[in-house]
Amino acid sequence: MTELQQLDKALVWHPFTPQEGELPDNIIAERGEGTCFITPDGRKIIDAIASWWVNLHGHAHPVIADAIAAQAKKLEHVMFAGFTHEPAVTLAQNLLSQVDASFTKVFYSDNGSTANEVALKLAMQYWYNQGISKPIIVALDGAYHGDTFGAMAVGERSIFTHPFTPYLFEVKFLDFPNGYNDAAVVQQFKELSEQQSVGAFIFEPLIQGASGMRMYQPETLQALLEVAKQNSIITIADEVFTGFYRTGKFLATHHIPHLPDIIALSKGITGGALPLGATLVNQKIYQAFVSADFSKAFLHGHSYTANPLACAAANASFQLLLQADCQQRIRSIAQRHQQFIEKIKKHVALSDCRALGTICAFEIKTQTESGYTNKLRDKILHYFLSKNILLRPLGNIFYLVPPYCITNEELDYIYAEIENFLDQLFVRDVSSK
Amino acid sequence: MTELQQLDKALVWHPFTPQEGELPDNIIAERGEGTCFITPDGRKIIDAIASWWVNLHGHAHPVIADAIAAQAKKLEHVMFAGFTHEPAVTLAQNLLSQVDASFTKVFYSDNGSTANEVALKLAMQYWYNQGISKPIIVALDGAYHGDTFGAMAVGERSIFTHPFTPYLFEVKFLDFPNGYNDAAVVQQFKELSEQQSVGAFIFEPLIQGASGMRMYQPETLQALLEVAKQNSIITIADEVFTGFYRTGKFLATHHIPHLPDIIALSKGITGGALPLGATLVNQKIYQAFVSADFSKAFLHGHSYTANPLACAAANASFQLLLQADCQQRIRSIAQRHQQFIEKIKKHVALSDCRALGTICAFEIKTQTESGYTNKLRDKILHYFLSKNILLRPLGNIFYLVPPYCITNEELDYIYAEIENFLDQLFVRDVSSK
Repeated sequence: MTELQQLDKALVWHPFTPQEGELPDNIIAERGEGTCFITPDGRKIIDAIASWWVNLHGHAHPVIADAIAAQAKKLEHVMFAGFTHEPAVTLAQNLLSQVDASFTKVFYSDNGSTANEVALKLAMQYWYNQGISKPIIVALDGAYHGDTFGAMAVGERSIFTHPFTPYLFEVKFLDFPNGYNDAAVVQQFKELSEQQSVGAFIFEPLIQGASGMRMYQPETLQALLEVAKQNSIITIADEVFTGFYRTGKFLATHHIPHLPDIIALSKGITGGALPLGATLVNQKIYQAFVSADFSKAFLHGHSYTANPLACAAANASFQLLLQADCQQRIRSIAQRHQQFIEKIKKHVALSDCRALGTICAFEIKTQTESGYTNKLRDKILHYFLSKNILLRPLGNIFYLVPPYCITNEELDYIYAEIENFLDQLFVRDVSSK
Repeated sequence: MTELQQLDKALVWHPFTPQEGELPDNIIAERGEGTCFITPDGRKIIDAIASWWVNLHGHAHPVIADAIAAQAKKLEHVMFAGFTHEPAVTLAQNLLSQVDASFTKVFYSDNGSTANEVALKLAMQYWYNQGISKPIIVALDGAYHGDTFGAMAVGERSIFTHPFTPYLFEVKFLDFPNGYNDAAVVQQFKELSEQQSVGAFIFEPLIQGASGMRMYQPETLQALLEVAKQNSIITIADEVFTGFYRTGKFLATHHIPHLPDIIALSKGITGGALPLGATLVNQKIYQAFVSADFSKAFLHGHSYTANPLACAAANASFQLLLQADCQQRIRSIAQRHQQFIEKIKKHVALSDCRALGTICAFEIKTQTESGYTNKLRDKILHYFLSKNILLRPLGNIFYLVPPYCITNEELDYIYAEIENFLDQLFVRDVSSK
């Protein structure tokens, strides 16, 4: 353990990390270069999960670094009430240029949790401002929307929330549409909406990330949004993970014709450089707040709302994202994922594998419960780290969410190691019987 | 209105801003220079409130800008579970070097709301992990701890929270110790603690910012913390506003001998450049999480937890903060505030004025309710903007929270304009009778 690692262990409390047990020392990332981190002793680790799904164009990308450096020398921050600045306005233009014209306003915040909390608060106050009581919030079973209290409330009650459950507001959860029960889930939403005063429905479109990269059908989401429309329910697409072409389109909701009312964005928005949240709102929602009455204004804000450095990074990342070579990489990654899934899907160690755009996931057969706390987690993590690949599994499920700049060679190396790992796992499983 | 302002109005929804009425167009901040913003047409506006109390060393400070630029070229971000990096470790060292040795760990997040929510969740899980039920959370009347649901819950129920009240967990509020009722407030806390299972007490130490720069006595806070100690109540100091020498000491809680268990920091942490939160925890709290059992781990995190760019900015700001000239400026600002308060305090237009460290506040006599929605707000805001001073009032209360680099000349100019404004206000009030 180096001196820096000792200090880290002594002073820093890391997220989602047990404070005792067999965990290895934290790896020091000293530099970033393309898809890789480089440690002080020169080890090069491929970031196959884009550092919790945030990185789009590679680490320490010079274009984004230059944009941040230039902005830092010009204007690092200004209070965003009564003042504005070019990077925030340009970013709003950029974001709104990629969505339907029904979306008219961007509200900034600092991360995915706050982008979702802003969305929920907007939906609640939309009804409040009109003097209408529609207090019930609906979410999907297995949902994860962040770790602040409002975001936790609309997420699954699980090991993540148990200590805080008494402090979370009540939410009605629909069953997850798993491909077998989809018509029943739509019917469940229909009955709930007709029986109770549902004000808002929040969902991760097409794929639930943290609950195990669980995917569901566009047709089902479309049907759920139709139920919402028929019952005047505000719909909130949590695109924090899925935005910025993760699923092959700018938004996951672009896979269906129906539009949500509110879209929460974060993660990829700055290309992975800086924290930033943005909540996109359609004109219907906004209209309920157009009033000189201060009590009808949206009284939410953070000190660093629309931070110019984060907005400058986001604008630089946006330009890179729309370039032909990046778009080509996104399509290529999606194709290669599909090909690999076709090749590997019957592997005896797998219970399922699946892909959507630049995301692919592998679920290992287990005799215990499938999910985040499955003990296969450590085995997967350590195997791939020993091969200099960062793959942080969700229990027995692991996935690739690479930066879009990942090369074919890097992908092939990762795919080959996945095969090796699954083969070894199978051999070991057989031999241990 | 310039083209940029038109786009801003069309596309961007600003925080805490009514969407109709007499508000002027948002001012474009194009560049920052020392205490000032510079607009595209060359207007130079003194930022007398440090952009919502975040800026310490002036805008676009070259040392902080260089630190950010260098870090952006090296490593912009890495997932903070299983990985670490030098800027985060150094910042933890820096922060812990300024507090009592009982504090042993730093947990990072993205802003003040999340720093407080982390603190609350740690306090709740501290009891949960030990199987002890102490569910009641206590806060001070008039509190403001942020705009996410957990932060709102421990804040005053007000115009800021009314649309969301049904979704906030219940909190017991003590009366604000206003100098007349302090013994009664301590007694109130004592009785509540003896009658009910209070698990945590959260407070803004010595000064409540958003509720009108309301100050209270160190002796009273000390007495409240003693009650907490006697009743095994976890104490959380929300130092988001007061940290980093705002009150003349590194922390506001450094004005009293008693120590809280948890300290939430944000705002000034990066010198005003980037969003970052840090929650400091004492060994007693941490010890309750030392377990290999995953369900006892603190399962909270944000994608950009411990962002290297924000940490690099914070380390650069920290070095500037401890330099002799900055420390001298902090003392000088505090002295000058006191002198000005002495001079102005009997002004017929004022009902009160007060100062603590680099903060001073002025409360204008009003025939309507004193507070955030008081109509004097617009008059104050517009007068000072017309003098190129950014002073964003809290209703009929306005305040100075300057960057520490503010010059004596700038302070004298602002003080003189405050006198002019109060004189005019008085004359106008008299003549309108």
